[in-house]
Amino acid sequence: MSITTPAGFSAAGVAAGLKSTGAKDLALVVNHGPTFDSASVFTANRCKANPVLWSQEVVKDGIVRAVVLNSGGANCYTGPEGFQTTHAVAERVGATVGVGAVDVVVCSTGLIGLANSREDLLAGVDAAHAALSPDGGDDAAHAIMTTDSVSKQAVVEGAGWSIGGMAKGAGMLAPQLATMLVVVTTDAVVPAADLDAALRAATRVSFDRLDSDGCMSTNDTVTVLASGASGITPSLPDFTEALTQLCTDLAMQLLRDAEGADHEIAITTVNAATTDDAVEVGRSVARSNLFKAAVFGKDPNWGRVLASLGTTSAAFDPADLDVAMNGVWVCRSSTPAEDPALVDLAPREVSVTIDLKAGGERATVWTNDLTHAYVHENSAYSS
Amino acid sequence: MSITTPAGFSAAGVAAGLKSTGAKDLALVVNHGPTFDSASVFTANRCKANPVLWSQEVVKDGIVRAVVLNSGGANCYTGPEGFQTTHAVAERVGATVGVGAVDVVVCSTGLIGLANSREDLLAGVDAAHAALSPDGGDDAAHAIMTTDSVSKQAVVEGAGWSIGGMAKGAGMLAPQLATMLVVVTTDAVVPAADLDAALRAATRVSFDRLDSDGCMSTNDTVTVLASGASGITPSLPDFTEALTQLCTDLAMQLLRDAEGADHEIAITTVNAATTDDAVEVGRSVARSNLFKAAVFGKDPNWGRVLASLGTTSAAFDPADLDVAMNGVWVCRSSTPAEDPALVDLAPREVSVTIDLKAGGERATVWTNDLTHAYVHENSAYSS
Repeated sequence: MSITTPAGFSAAGVAAGLKSTGAKDLALVVNHGPTFDSASVFTANRCKANPVLWSQEVVKDGIVRAVVLNSGGANCYTGPEGFQTTHAVAERVGATVGVGAVDVVVCSTGLIGLANSREDLLAGVDAAHAALSPDGGDDAAHAIMTTDSVSKQAVVEGAGWSIGGMAKGAGMLAPQLATMLVVVTTDAVVPAADLDAALRAATRVSFDRLDSDGCMSTNDTVTVLASGASGITPSLPDFTEALTQLCTDLAMQLLRDAEGADHEIAITTVNAATTDDAVEVGRSVARSNLFKAAVFGKDPNWGRVLASLGTTSAAFDPADLDVAMNGVWVCRSSTPAEDPALVDLAPREVSVTIDLKAGGERATVWTNDLTHAYVHENSAYSS
Repeated sequence: MSITTPAGFSAAGVAAGLKSTGAKDLALVVNHGPTFDSASVFTANRCKANPVLWSQEVVKDGIVRAVVLNSGGANCYTGPEGFQTTHAVAERVGATVGVGAVDVVVCSTGLIGLANSREDLLAGVDAAHAALSPDGGDDAAHAIMTTDSVSKQAVVEGAGWSIGGMAKGAGMLAPQLATMLVVVTTDAVVPAADLDAALRAATRVSFDRLDSDGCMSTNDTVTVLASGASGITPSLPDFTEALTQLCTDLAMQLLRDAEGADHEIAITTVNAATTDDAVEVGRSVARSNLFKAAVFGKDPNWGRVLASLGTTSAAFDPADLDVAMNGVWVCRSSTPAEDPALVDLAPREVSVTIDLKAGGERATVWTNDLTHAYVHENSAYSS
């Protein structure tokens, strides 16, 4: 149940010495074909890490043969020297696997502003190549973990084909992508243009709607590789649905493992004039530190929800908003309604429903609460 | 040294029983003229509290005779009944002071979604009227405190005239205003139109550039009253400069008393193409929970500064950004420069300087760090 579940792939995860703990920190995923179609999406952050600058060029022709990923250092804001390290890693993967470096996506994660040892990385590539296995998906998923407490993997089965995925990410989860690296494999036959359409549709309603702490990463990469090894060509709607299911599964795993969180909060905006309105409203609530701290304190503070809504440009009447928490309509027409004491915020899963009464669209945005552990983890991370 | 320092004003602060602690919770400020010019700015939040909805109408003619403020309840999302309470309070002030209710600004602060006792408020108005004194400014400043640990007051002296101010606010400090109520008095002769221009110029570079936790309040009000009692008409530039100085002084007092903060952070963006760019960049950093948690942990994490910049639309080259913390240029041309270990984050005051190398404009945005105490205070506030 990993990225090596679909046929046509091998993978490995090894310890290259980038993590001081000695844990696995370098992963390699190779597509053995017969097809090498791919699609990718990257962070919308304008300050992109070196691996993103490299990989954006690699993916342009829709062909990717291998993905190499390291934890233990993001290779971001490391200057031309850092870019050369990324290039050297791609070259080494190309040389060992027997493909062109221009078909090798490189991903890095960890601290930014920190240069990894190029020698360690290159030796790690050699070790990973030696360890490549058709069962190596689980090792690879572990090698990309940073502050993740568990590895994130998922598989969705189609009719004679399948999709596998692995993800890392545990904070800085925000659009346009969470801080995360994701590799998705499939043995379906899917041309690159279709892969691209399916991936954009899938990420738009999954990773793009995670907003753990409002912070956007510099390294986010989602790459999907199609080996065609099943020989089966699913319809684009079928493939898109399966890919969306896989991405949503991984996104929820990221949400549940967010740094220091006590609650997973699903903010669903209904009866919006447009989907964009619904997303904007959900995101405004997801970014309210006051609301998120209240959820941590098990306080169903719907006033902080309305205060967030008021900062958006969504269509609604400020005097006629309804808000439910865990199914209790604590606010009707912007005034107190059912008793907030009926809202039980002890369970980890919290639902907030906002009725804008302005149309027929809806969207869900996911976030976490703001906790002491979040502050602790993010103040102690690098010091 | 209060709002009753300028001639022509009386004020009072009394306990009306709105706060369960029995502390002062209702303030009254009366302008005795001979002029009654005024100007106000209100929260940009579309979900406004009842007192704001009322006061926005009151101020339209540029004449305000009195301001009544209560803590212990924001009268927000309390529906038509809440609006009627605001109206009744204004009527009672008008009747006791001998002015029209339409010249009475009403301000409320405290929990939202909670209706205060109208009887308590009206009795409080009577008590405040009885207590009005030309030395009552300090009492008034104390009566508007909520989670504030200290009262905020300031005076700026002109040539034969003065400006006094009081403010409350200790969280939810964000544009377009912080969560705050501010009353400013002056005995200068300043026509309403000039007051309005001066106030907008002053708030734009003071309160509007406070961004404590990114959350915008529903009740923010800043009202300036000119009594003309000095008989002196300062030039508009002189008055604007003094008013800006006063508002900046109060804003810094708000910043230093922000809920649970360990550090005051001044983010100065220099060499921006436009002032708007400089403000947008500063605000993006001020809203980065990751950066703010790092400051709490005394970690000079400049990578989180650059990651925030990348989310803005400001003009800059992502590969050529410089960042200093407390004067140490830890990042030059988007790569590591001076040793971050040289940055001492033990003192409360932190300066971040960002050089965009894109023009000649600059702006400073102020924020606080993200601490355990912030999470605690905002998770326990209403429960």
